[in-house]
This record gives sequence, structure tokens and C-alpha cells, in this order.
Amino acid sequence: MQVFEQVESEVRSYCRNWPTVFTTAKGSRIDDEQGRSYIDFFAGAGSLNYGHNHPVLKEALLGYLAEDNVVHTLDTYSGAKRTFLETFRDVVLAPRNLDYKVQFPGPAGNNAVEAALKLARKYTGRETVVSFTNGFHGMTLGALAVTGNSMKRGGAGVPLNNAATMPYDNYMDGQTPDFLWLRSLLEDSGSGLDQPAAVIVETVQGEGGINVATHEWLRGLQDVCREHDMLFIVDDIQMGCGRTGPFFSFERSGIYPDIVTLSKSLSGMGLPFALTLMKPHLDVWEPGEHNGTFRGFAPAFVTATAALETFWRNDDFTAGVDRDAAWLDAELADIAASHAELGIATRGRGLARGMVFDNPEHAGQVCKEAFANGLLMETSGAEDEVVKFLPPLTTSRADFEEGVDIVREAVATVEKEAAAKGTA
Amino acid sequence: MQVFEQVESEVRSYCRNWPTVFTTAKGSRIDDEQGRSYIDFFAGAGSLNYGHNHPVLKEALLGYLAEDNVVHTLDTYSGAKRTFLETFRDVVLAPRNLDYKVQFPGPAGNNAVEAALKLARKYTGRETVVSFTNGFHGMTLGALAVTGNSMKRGGAGVPLNNAATMPYDNYMDGQTPDFLWLRSLLEDSGSGLDQPAAVIVETVQGEGGINVATHEWLRGLQDVCREHDMLFIVDDIQMGCGRTGPFFSFERSGIYPDIVTLSKSLSGMGLPFALTLMKPHLDVWEPGEHNGTFRGFAPAFVTATAALETFWRNDDFTAGVDRDAAWLDAELADIAASHAELGIATRGRGLARGMVFDNPEHAGQVCKEAFANGLLMETSGAEDEVVKFLPPLTTSRADFEEGVDIVREAVATVEKEAAAKGTA
Amino acid sequence: MQVFEQVESEVRSYCRNWPTVFTTAKGSRIDDEQGRSYIDFFAGAGSLNYGHNHPVLKEALLGYLAEDNVVHTLDTYSGAKRTFLETFRDVVLAPRNLDYKVQFPGPAGNNAVEAALKLARKYTGRETVVSFTNGFHGMTLGALAVTGNSMKRGGAGVPLNNAATMPYDNYMDGQTPDFLWLRSLLEDSGSGLDQPAAVIVETVQGEGGINVATHEWLRGLQDVCREHDMLFIVDDIQMGCGRTGPFFSFERSGIYPDIVTLSKSLSGMGLPFALTLMKPHLDVWEPGEHNGTFRGFAPAFVTATAALETFWRNDDFTAGVDRDAAWLDAELADIAASHAELGIATRGRGLARGMVFDNPEHAGQVCKEAFANGLLMETSGAEDEVVKFLPPLTTSRADFEEGVDIVREAVATVEKEAAAKGTA
Amino acid sequence: MQVFEQVESEVRSYCRNWPTVFTTAKGSRIDDEQGRSYIDFFAGAGSLNYGHNHPVLKEALLGYLAEDNVVHTLDTYSGAKRTFLETFRDVVLAPRNLDYKVQFPGPAGNNAVEAALKLARKYTGRETVVSFTNGFHGMTLGALAVTGNSMKRGGAGVPLNNAATMPYDNYMDGQTPDFLWLRSLLEDSGSGLDQPAAVIVETVQGEGGINVATHEWLRGLQDVCREHDMLFIVDDIQMGCGRTGPFFSFERSGIYPDIVTLSKSLSGMGLPFALTLMKPHLDVWEPGEHNGTFRGFAPAFVTATAALETFWRNDDFTAGVDRDAAWLDAELADIAASHAELGIATRGRGLARGMVFDNPEHAGQVCKEAFANGLLMETSGAEDEVVKFLPPLTTSRADFEEGVDIVREAVATVEKEAAAKGTA
Repeated sequence: MQVFEQVESEVRSYCRNWPTVFTTAKGSRIDDEQGRSYIDFFAGAGSLNYGHNHPVLKEALLGYLAEDNVVHTLDTYSGAKRTFLETFRDVVLAPRNLDYKVQFPGPAGNNAVEAALKLARKYTGRETVVSFTNGFHGMTLGALAVTGNSMKRGGAGVPLNNAATMPYDNYMDGQTPDFLWLRSLLEDSGSGLDQPAAVIVETVQGEGGINVATHEWLRGLQDVCREHDMLFIVDDIQMGCGRTGPFFSFERSGIYPDIVTLSKSLSGMGLPFALTLMKPHLDVWEPGEHNGTFRGFAPAFVTATAALETFWRNDDFTAGVDRDAAWLDAELADIAASHAELGIATRGRGLARGMVFDNPEHAGQVCKEAFANGLLMETSGAEDEVVKFLPPLTTSRADFEEGVDIVREAVATVEKEAAAKGTA
Repeated sequence: MQVFEQVESEVRSYCRNWPTVFTTAKGSRIDDEQGRSYIDFFAGAGSLNYGHNHPVLKEALLGYLAEDNVVHTLDTYSGAKRTFLETFRDVVLAPRNLDYKVQFPGPAGNNAVEAALKLARKYTGRETVVSFTNGFHGMTLGALAVTGNSMKRGGAGVPLNNAATMPYDNYMDGQTPDFLWLRSLLEDSGSGLDQPAAVIVETVQGEGGINVATHEWLRGLQDVCREHDMLFIVDDIQMGCGRTGPFFSFERSGIYPDIVTLSKSLSGMGLPFALTLMKPHLDVWEPGEHNGTFRGFAPAFVTATAALETFWRNDDFTAGVDRDAAWLDAELADIAASHAELGIATRGRGLARGMVFDNPEHAGQVCKEAFANGLLMETSGAEDEVVKFLPPLTTSRADFEEGVDIVREAVATVEKEAAAKGTA
Repeated sequence: MQVFEQVESEVRSYCRNWPTVFTTAKGSRIDDEQGRSYIDFFAGAGSLNYGHNHPVLKEALLGYLAEDNVVHTLDTYSGAKRTFLETFRDVVLAPRNLDYKVQFPGPAGNNAVEAALKLARKYTGRETVVSFTNGFHGMTLGALAVTGNSMKRGGAGVPLNNAATMPYDNYMDGQTPDFLWLRSLLEDSGSGLDQPAAVIVETVQGEGGINVATHEWLRGLQDVCREHDMLFIVDDIQMGCGRTGPFFSFERSGIYPDIVTLSKSLSGMGLPFALTLMKPHLDVWEPGEHNGTFRGFAPAFVTATAALETFWRNDDFTAGVDRDAAWLDAELADIAASHAELGIATRGRGLARGMVFDNPEHAGQVCKEAFANGLLMETSGAEDEVVKFLPPLTTSRADFEEGVDIVREAVATVEKEAAAKGTA
Repeated sequence: MQVFEQVESEVRSYCRNWPTVFTTAKGSRIDDEQGRSYIDFFAGAGSLNYGHNHPVLKEALLGYLAEDNVVHTLDTYSGAKRTFLETFRDVVLAPRNLDYKVQFPGPAGNNAVEAALKLARKYTGRETVVSFTNGFHGMTLGALAVTGNSMKRGGAGVPLNNAATMPYDNYMDGQTPDFLWLRSLLEDSGSGLDQPAAVIVETVQGEGGINVATHEWLRGLQDVCREHDMLFIVDDIQMGCGRTGPFFSFERSGIYPDIVTLSKSLSGMGLPFALTLMKPHLDVWEPGEHNGTFRGFAPAFVTATAALETFWRNDDFTAGVDRDAAWLDAELADIAASHAELGIATRGRGLARGMVFDNPEHAGQVCKEAFANGLLMETSGAEDEVVKFLPPLTTSRADFEEGVDIVREAVATVEKEAAAKGTA
């Protein structure tokens, strides 16, 4: 691993917790070059909802590439793009009665966020965007300004402006009514908050610690937006594509965002791909006003189309996620209850789940122990106090059980060590 | 093409000039679904230096994918990444005596630029970055602030700050000594320019109109940076990977930038991929301080490695580019000379070349005429007054000749029409 | 009054409510050119705490000017400045055990605020300043960014940044614990609030609607500042110089701000004058780093010195303010109680008092009616819903009674009209 | 002087060069408490064009104050304000065919500049303001962003944005045509300069080093503004009120600025007072959109009116300034010529004049030597390389001669010392 340490920048991070070299992967499993197999409950930070190298998607990709179909097309028309657009319209938008125009803003989630923010500001002629505590939207300058994490914000090297942070659902432990602060600011012309262009929110904050906004809170937020003429942007990059059950994470909340961002699992196989969706009247872009080199990466159109066809033509996939989520939730609650000394809370929606440890160190220790026993999981939250579960949605019950067993053992080990050290 | 018009955002642009649906592509040729074959002198805006679907790269990619190697790895260690890093070190850096650390900043060029700007500001503790007239660095908020184009800047919806624009080489037609203005500002404590963190520059401005900085000017700029303690960033996203002959476009200028960005042709096959290179002492990132989902897209490592092995183990490829560039330059000069009434100037370096028309409309008409006759070319420059040639570097002489013949005819046609209308 | 309408900018405002031409003034009375005498409960928006043309101050000023003493001295040393500094030290600072260095930042309150903000940012190396809902600190760009009023903010023409607005005491009607939001933001590294340089606060918000911060809240705010390493700035421009009883409005709160701004009544006679006070270790200014033309307006030193000598050598003046405040409070409460149909609340501290009307129009009508009957009062608050009482602190009981009688009648009239219109 | 050192902030600066305590002053002379009399060629940095305590102005002021006329009136109508407005209209505006609305923006020059910038941005809906190298416009955040001095800019503690610095007349020693850079930026949609709201310029830069813009250059700048739809703001705070001969410094340039700022000598006696003048169609302020406590300081109206009546009813005063300026110019040129070893250039317009020393230290030494011999003068320029002459315009020939003799001796002494040290 010497070349990594010698040549790669110090900015690398996941590799520091998982110091091995990965080679092959399939479904919910990934192998390293020593031939060790790991269960992957991290799934590319939510980019591999259908698992590694799903055979149907892989087949579609290999077929496309083998026949010398065009790979890189900028925003010219290609057959692959047409098929994707038609499928996205027919399989995703139409059945849900969602009327959105589709923008290909660039290959990464931050491109989708930057396009959303630019469009919201351009459309409204206003600058301020409301974001939420512990929100995560990306590392480019516009996206970083609406991201909460102070370490990452510090990397900007310039003040991050034109944004205002507000409390996410339950941020103040129920000690204050929902939206009291935001509404007060908006309704009071002396509040110091300039009329915002938009709010940007995740329905469940993954990087922020698996913080779940209730459906009621999301509807309330939409109400505030409607009443105060702010665009409502849902960043569904991590929670979309079925992570919480339905395709969009907001479907069950009864809301209809003005702008939606998608990426991560959209291509279905981990290929860079992102979308910005906007209600048709918001599509005020000039031709070419936002551009970029990798907006027409056809292989991603192909695998994304295959994923839509395979998983989203009917509700079976969602039903499966719901079932697995209920099972996993019960298992994690059981682990938490069995180790009350560690002070573990569980939370989540769908297959985005978290175990929150009173002592953040324990969360890290559990992940370390899990890795030693063949399971990949990461911490999240401002203090890295949450063990985050983002398993592939296609994980078999057997793999689930094996993974949960490793977690159970890891928690037991950490509890034992904590008891020995007196830190529990 | 109805679905594009109904579902895709108005922001789409290239497709408006080339209203057809592309399907397959190989080398310098791309075909549409009517079976029409086009010579491609656009090459994905410089992302396809080795042509479409180069057989060696394709083979490597298919092989990698077929064996269920890992596709999406964030910044964990993978075998594909190790091989890429070793190859990049051995084939690119070491032979050129360039000592750089390598950062994978995200899949797009704008990610590489954002990381470069953040690092320069963090390292120096200063905010201002000097950019140049008609520079192009990307659409995310940080990159957009150092980009010249007013239409694209207008899309930001917020003031673009912490940047200062300076005249690019020959911007004022030799009416003022090089760097007189920049040096005056830096040397005068009353100038109003706050001490900059860095300058960011392209050696040849592609989007800006194939404006070529002389080697002397680039060395002069490096001198100013050294004397005034500013980091020297070369954005080699479009001109790197052999576009001007050598791997880095700055090699023949005798400069050694502090930070370099690469993307576009880096993967060799049009896959999203980008790098930020920095001198080792500048690698002051905290682990995870800049992150992103698609920093470990292994297929791009694989094709990029194959491209380095195929084209860059020796100097033959560069020699070929030099030969073709000299030939193309002569051909274009001949066309220009043969149609003096249109007022055409030619310029460029390597296989980035431009024909500049006195009347910008003529540039657009030439491209339109060329498309009608089976050749893809785009305009660039602030007024779209430049016909831009970015052919694949692997273009055969036969394809070159066919393409140039189409250009010759297109210019002749435009001249005839202009004469008829009295606009020439 | 034609010349005003023809020549003066549309920005003028107070004159629109009081359409007459004022000529002479003495104590709590001001006369117009028709010979009409008004009781002045506005007092130059709190700039005339000692009344118009106080005889002792006037005498000092006339004497100084008559003898050709120096008037304009920038920041050179003058006898008048020395006397002022000595008096300020001996009469104001030393008896209160306040150790402050004194900066003359320019003639206006906004200069004092701008200097305070610059110093706080320079000292801490941070950019964000926390301000409060309905705070008012001035119209220059730095001061405006920490001011709440949206109409005034809109005049900036650029986004107002590097500031974060927080709820003032009781802003959310007791529905949330004090500082819960601010503390949450500061203690959570994922909150999106960058570590602030300082907070800036008024102990009573005059322009904001006579909102009174409790002593407990102010101490709590100081605690938050101390715990989170933020400088604590009290803007005492309107509430200082005895408006609430003691010289500094914060004396009875048991707090010791790091930086204090003073202006308005500081000169005692309405002459432009302002100070920025800072704890000695904060005095990190370079010589001349903040300058300005009117920092040494000697006549203001002279009248300010006379005011300190006349009113602040002992506690009698404060005791008088306390007495009058208690009386006025009771009178206003009585008026409110007598007209319960109008829904009037009263509030205030010292001789900064407000009558808050359920229906903001009634506040304006009361002021209009009062003007017609010879009393000057203004509305304040975000909706202009508060009738603001800022009488000279030297107002005689007879004048107080006359003024209050006019208020009583005005309220009765407004109530009658409201009843007739059915708006009460 | 102990109290100054103990109590006053380290920011004080002029007092460091003139370590004495001033007491009385009359005309061009100021005295310290040791009874020493100084000739004052500094004149409050141009605030005392009519000398200290001019008897007519003083008489008017004493008379006004003695009769208990109103002193502090915010923006209510007062008799003093009406008389001032009428006089300003009749004596200043009408005879010059200048149609301006008058705003009272606050007591200091920076208030006038802040109001001008806000108005220009509000009127145009744009953010960027073009300023010039070595320009000086004030210390508040908006004014500081268009000020060149790096030390003063550094005091802001936040990035200074929404401004673009351009070369002042002759900044690059004639090596580049006037406005080539600015025009290139404005005419090139790819330049990176966003369309500016306005330019702000001084006709002669006082703080910047007595840099004189030619009439031709100012007309050229006005042409650029007209052609490119930018408002043309002349900051006449230091050069107005006769400093260069006519009332406005721009009268002889044949230009008609859109917005003009005035302050410093406007009150005539050193009282804080400032105006922002705007062409009537630009007066788009909402009532109260820009406010401030000391916008109605009646004593300044009174002395300003007296000054207009005394000096500006006819052209005699201007003619006198012209005569004295020609004489002083010749004297300084003679001194420079007599000490060629020191490398002294002279420049200026009217009675704003400078001696520029090759070695900046010599400028400081000349001022120090002059002070020792009873003459107050300051250095200016980015390197403090310019001895600045801003004598009262009412200086008698006898005082002028005495002052110039001191300069002559001071230069001789410095030359001698330089020769001895070998620094000349």
C-alpha cells in the first residue's frame, strides 16, 4: 500500500479505517486482495443500492460497450439518453404524477446541487438559501455553503455566504415548536433574514447522523415554503432510488418539491451520474448557461435505464425494502436493548438506519471491530457518534443475518472493553 | 426527438446545433441513427484525445467489468487505483521530474478546480485568486468565479467574488507590456488588489477562443508568482493529455506549476475522471476535508492506466501530434489565405486550433455547413467568432484530409453566400 | 417648504410626519416658525438626553468657540480632547471599575459600530458576527449587515453577509429556552454556523420597538460569549448616557462587555460624536488602520465634558431618571388599561418606553394626533406598531404631565375613531 | 500627554508625528499649549479650506447657538436647513447648470460615499463598482472596498468584494493607452468583469499621493461610463469646495457626474457635514431607506451657508486660489530644482500640491524637520513618498512665504543629512 501513502494526497480518508486493497465485489460482498470477503453495509455511501455489479446492469453495460456505442456525448442527443429519458418519464415520473423537467448537470451530486441553487437564485432573483443543521450537500463552493460540517466548511478558505442555517426536525429536542424560528424570521420584516430564494433539505440526513425528518415536519416545511414564496428543494442524492422504500424518499410525506436532486445510486452500478429535476415553470435556463464535460456519459444512461426497468416497474422492490427495514430495525433495537450500559439509541427510515452511541468513541470501536470481523460500516454525525447502516437494498436475508451477527458481536466486545476500562 | 424537447431542460445546447441522435462511434467517427457517419473534430470538447472507443482501452474496460472487479470505491484502496497511481507516477511524473501528490477530487473538471482553489486559499490563508480574461474553469460556484464568460457568470445568481481578472497573453494586442498591470497592482500597496492566494491559468484557452499563451508569457507569469508569493495553478483539463503535443501542455514552456488540474481525456474513453496535482509541501489537507461520492470510479482508473501505457511510455505519440499539428496548421492557413475576403486568422498549439473570423456569424455558418456535410466542429470565443478544431489525436491522415476538405468547402460556401449578401 | 420638496432627496422621512419648519428649542420644547411650541418626546431619537440647548453645555460651547479654540483636529492632541479623556476616565470609567481603551472612530454611531466590527474580526481572525432580530446598528455596509430591518437592508444593493441573526430576548414568546438555538449552533460542529468573532447587541432595542432584554438574558448572553470565545459587543448608542438610568445601560445587568459603542447623547447637545470602547488587550489596531476626517471635533469634546461634569459626578441624575421612569411607566399603563379595546401593552426600561398597539395603524394615528396637539413622538418596531417615548431625561414633571395628557387624549381619540370604524 | 497614551487607542496616528497639544487656531495658524505657533499646511486634511475659525463663519455660528436655535433635527425641516438648501441651490448648483437632488447622508464623508454606492447599486440592480488604484473613500465597509490602501483594507477582517480596481490616470507611466484595459473588459463578454453599477473616482487623489487626473482623462472616463451604462460618481470630498480653484473640482474638466459626494470643507469650519448629490432621475430612495442620527446638524448648515455666501457668490475666491496655486507651484518647482540630488518631482492642481521624493524616507524627514520649525505638513502616497500641501485657501501671501521658507530649509537640511549618510 506504499504507493498510496507516497503518492496520494493526505485528504484520503475511508482507506484509513479500512486499510486493505479491495479487488472484486458482487452484490453485498466485496473482497480484498488477500481473498478476504466482507459484507458491505456501506454500499458506496449509498451509491450501490442494487449491490455491486448487479448482473442485469452489468450485462446491459457490457453489451452497450461491446458494440461501440457512443460513450461521451456532452449534451448532444444519443439513443442511450433518449431511452433513459423515456424510461425515467414512464417508470418514475408519470406513475407518481410528478411533472418535472430533467437537467443533466454534471456527473456528481454536487453538480446537481449547484445547478439547483443557481436555478433557484436565478428564478427568484434572490440570494439567500435556507439550509439545515447537519445537512450535507457537497464540497463545491455553492454546495459547501449549505453544508453544516465545520471541518469541511473550513476547507473553503473563504467565508461561505448567502445561506442561513435553520434547525432540522427535532434538532432542539422538542423544546421549541417546529418552524417557530423560521416562521418568526420570515414573518418579521425586522428579523435580519433576507427573503430567501429557497430551502434545501434532505428527508433523512445520512452524513449528518441518520437524522429522520417526520412526514409531518416535511409537510410543514413545504407549507412554510408555499406561504413565503420560497422554492422547496429536496436533495435526494443519498435517500433517493429506494433507500427509504419508495423511489423518492419524499413520496410518503405527501410533498411535491419544486426542485429535486438525484445522484449516487441513480446509475445503479456506481457510475458517476446526477440529475436536477425542476417543475416546468422553473426551467428558465438559457441554453448552455450551465454546462460541463460529463453531462452525457452514456454508460450511466444505460445502467440507470436497466435499473429502472429491473426494480421500479412495479412496487415489489419497495415492498422488499419495507420488509427488510422492519426486520433490521427490530434487530438493531434488540442489540441496543441488550447492551443498555452503552446507551444506544436506534433510528432511521427504510434501509438507512443508525445506532447512536452515548459515547462517540464506542461507535468508532464498533465499526473497527466489525471490519476486523468482515463487515464494512461507517460512522456519521457531527461527533461520529452514529454507526450508519446503508446496506444494498438487494441484500439477502442470509447476508443481513451474517452482518447483524457481526454487529451484535462487535457491540458485545465494545461493551466488554468499556466495562473493563470503566467508560460505559 | 420529441422526448428531449418535452422532458429535458432548456439548458441543453450542443444538441441545438447538431439536431440528430447519435448512436455508435469509433475513432474519429460518430454515427447517427439514420446511419449517417460524421467526422468528429470536436471530440467531446477535448475529452476524446484517443478517439471514441479506442480498442485497447475498451478491451481493458470490458475485461475489468466482466470479472466483477469493484466499480465504486470512494477513496478506499483498490487494485485498480494502485495500478493507476503507480503508472501515473512511473509514466507521467517521474520521467518529467515532476514531484506531485495526487488528489482524486471528484469525477469532473470542476471538482479538480474547486479542490485547487480551496487548497490554495487554505495553504496561504488568503482569499483572492487571479484569473484571466476569457478563462474557463467550470460551472460550480468557486470555479465560476474565475471563469470569464458573462452569460455563464450570470447563472450564479449571487455576486462572484474573491477573484480578480487580469489580461491574458496578447489580450490588449501588444499595446501594453506583459504583466505591467499585474505587477503594478502587486508592487503598489495602494492598488486595491489584496495579496492573492494564487493565479489560475490555461496555457491555451479552448472555450475562450483558442487563445495561445506564449512560452515566454507563461514563464513570465511563473516569475510574477514566485516573486510575489502566489501559487501558480495550471488548469490543464482541456489542454493536457497530449492535446498540444506533450502530456502536460506546459512542459515545453519551462514552467513547473504548484498545482495542476487534469480531467477530460484523462480516462481516455470519456469516463468521468479528474485529478488535482499539488507539490508535496502544499498537501495540507485534513483527511476527508474535501470528499465526494465518485472519487474512486475504478473503471476510469483502468482505462486511464491503459491510455498511459498505450500512448505515453515513449515520445512517439507526441511526435505524431506534432506532425499532424504542423500539417493541419498549414492546411488551415491555406484555407484562410484562399478566402481573404472573409478575414480569417488561424492560431493554435498542437491539435487545438482555431480559425478566427472577422464576422462571428461566418464562424457559425461554417460549422453549420460542415455539419450538413458530415463534420462536427464547434465555435468558441466570447463572440463565438472562432471555429475550434479539437480532433482526436489519433485521427488518421485520411480522416484529417476528409475533414479539412469539408472545412474548405464550407468556407467557400460561406464566402459565396457572404458575397451574395454583401457581408464579407 | 417648497425647497425641501424640490431639492432634497426622497430619502427624507421624519419631516413627512411632522410637516413644519422647526426653529428654536430649549429643554424639552421645540418651536416651529409659526411660533407653535411642541413637547419633544423624541429627543433626536435619543440624542438629546439633556434636552435641547442645555444652558451649561451651551455656555461651555459658546465660550470655547468664542476664544478661537481649535475646532477640527483629526487625531492630533488637543486640550479639549485631553480634558474629555480625563473626565471620561475619572467620571465614567474609574468609578465603575471599567477598564477600556477609547477610540474616536468618526462622528457617527455607524462609525463606532464599523470600528467595533472591524476590531472584533481583526482580533479573532474570524468573519461571522452574531446579531439579533430587530437590532439596529446603522446604515453603512458593515453596520447594515447586522441590522434587522428588511427595507433598510434592501438599500444595500449587495448581499449582506458575514452575519448571523439570532432571537432577541423573548423573541419567541417564551416558547423556547433562552439561547437554546445559539448554544446548539455553537456546540454542534455540524450546525453550519461558523465560529463567530463576536455578538453585537442592544440592551434595549429602540428602533426595534423598545424591546427590553432582561438582566438575566444579558448575563446569559455574556456567559455564552465567554464559553464560546466570542467577543461581546454592546451597542449602547441609543440606550447609553443615562437613557435607562445609569450611564451605561448594561451596568445593572452585571455584565462587562468586551467592546462598547457610544454616540447620540454623548456630546450632550446633539453634536456628532461617537466612541468605541475596548478592553485593553483588544486594542490591536495599527496606527491609522481606521481613520476618518471628523474624529477630533473639539466642540463635541467640550460639550461632552460639560455633560459628564454636570450630570455624572454623582448618582442624583440616575435617581431622577429612575423616579421619572417609574412615574411614566405607571401613567402609560394607566392609559393602556383605560383603553383596553385598543389592545395596548406597555414596556420599557428607564425613560425608553413604548406603547405597543395590537393594530399598528393605531400607533401611527396616536403619533399623528399627538403632533396635532403639540407633542412629538415616533413609532418604531418592524410594523411601526410601537409608540416610542424617548423624552429628554431632564424633562420637568410639568412637561411630562402635559405630554402624557396629550398622549391620553390622542389614545382616546384614536379609540373613538376605531370604534366608529369598527377597527378596535 | 500621558492620558492619551494611557486611555486612547493605539489607532491614533497624526499625533505620533506632531507630539504636542494644540489649543487655539485662527486662519492658517494653530498654536500649542506651550504657546508655539505653527503654520498649518495640512488644514484638517483639507477640511479647513477657509482656515481655522474664520471670523464670519464663527460669528454666524455663535449667533445661531446663542439664540437657542435648534441644533439637532434629524431630517425634520428646520429654518437652518432651508436656508442652506436655498443657498446651495442658488449659489452652487444653478449658476453651474447642475441639476442635482441633495441627500444628507450623515455627518462624515464615508456616509456620503456609502449612500452613493448604495444608490448606484439600487438604481442599476448591479453590484460591482469600479474604483481606481490609490483611491481613498473611507473606512466603513462599503467605502473601504473601493479604497486602495492595503493596510486599511486589512483592517476590515472580511474579504472586500463587489469592487474592481482599475488604473488611475498615468498609473502605468504612459505605457498603455488610457482606458484600454477598462474598455477591453467592458466590451468583451468573456472578460470576467461583471457589468458594473458605477465608477467612483477622485479628480485629484489626495491621500493617494496628489495624483492628478487630466481633464482629458476625466472626460474619457465619463465617455466610458456613458457608453457602457455605468453611473459616474465623483468623490469630491477632499478636492471640492475650492481646493483646486472652482467649487467642484470637476468643473473645468467639462464633465457632469451622475453622483457627487461632498464633505470636509463643506461646513467651512470643520464641523461634521456631508452631502450626496444625485441627478434627479437617480433619486429612487424610499423614505427612510438610508437614515442616520446626525443628518440634521443645524450648526453645520449655518456655517456652510455662511461659507457659500462669503466665498462663492462670485469668482473672486477661485481667482485667488488660481493665483496662489501658480505661485506655490513655481516655488515648489524651484525648491525641487535647487535640490536635484534628492530627486524631487512636483505635481498638483490648485492648492492641492505634492513634492514627490525618490526616497520616501526623505519625504518623512522633510515633514519632521518642518514641524520642528513650525510648519504642519503630512506625507501621503502608498509609500508615504509625497509631501502633501493642503494649505487653507485663505492663506495670506506672507504666511505662504513663511511656510515655503520652512519647506526650503527643511529640504536643504534633509539633503545635507542625506549627503552625509550617502542616501541621496
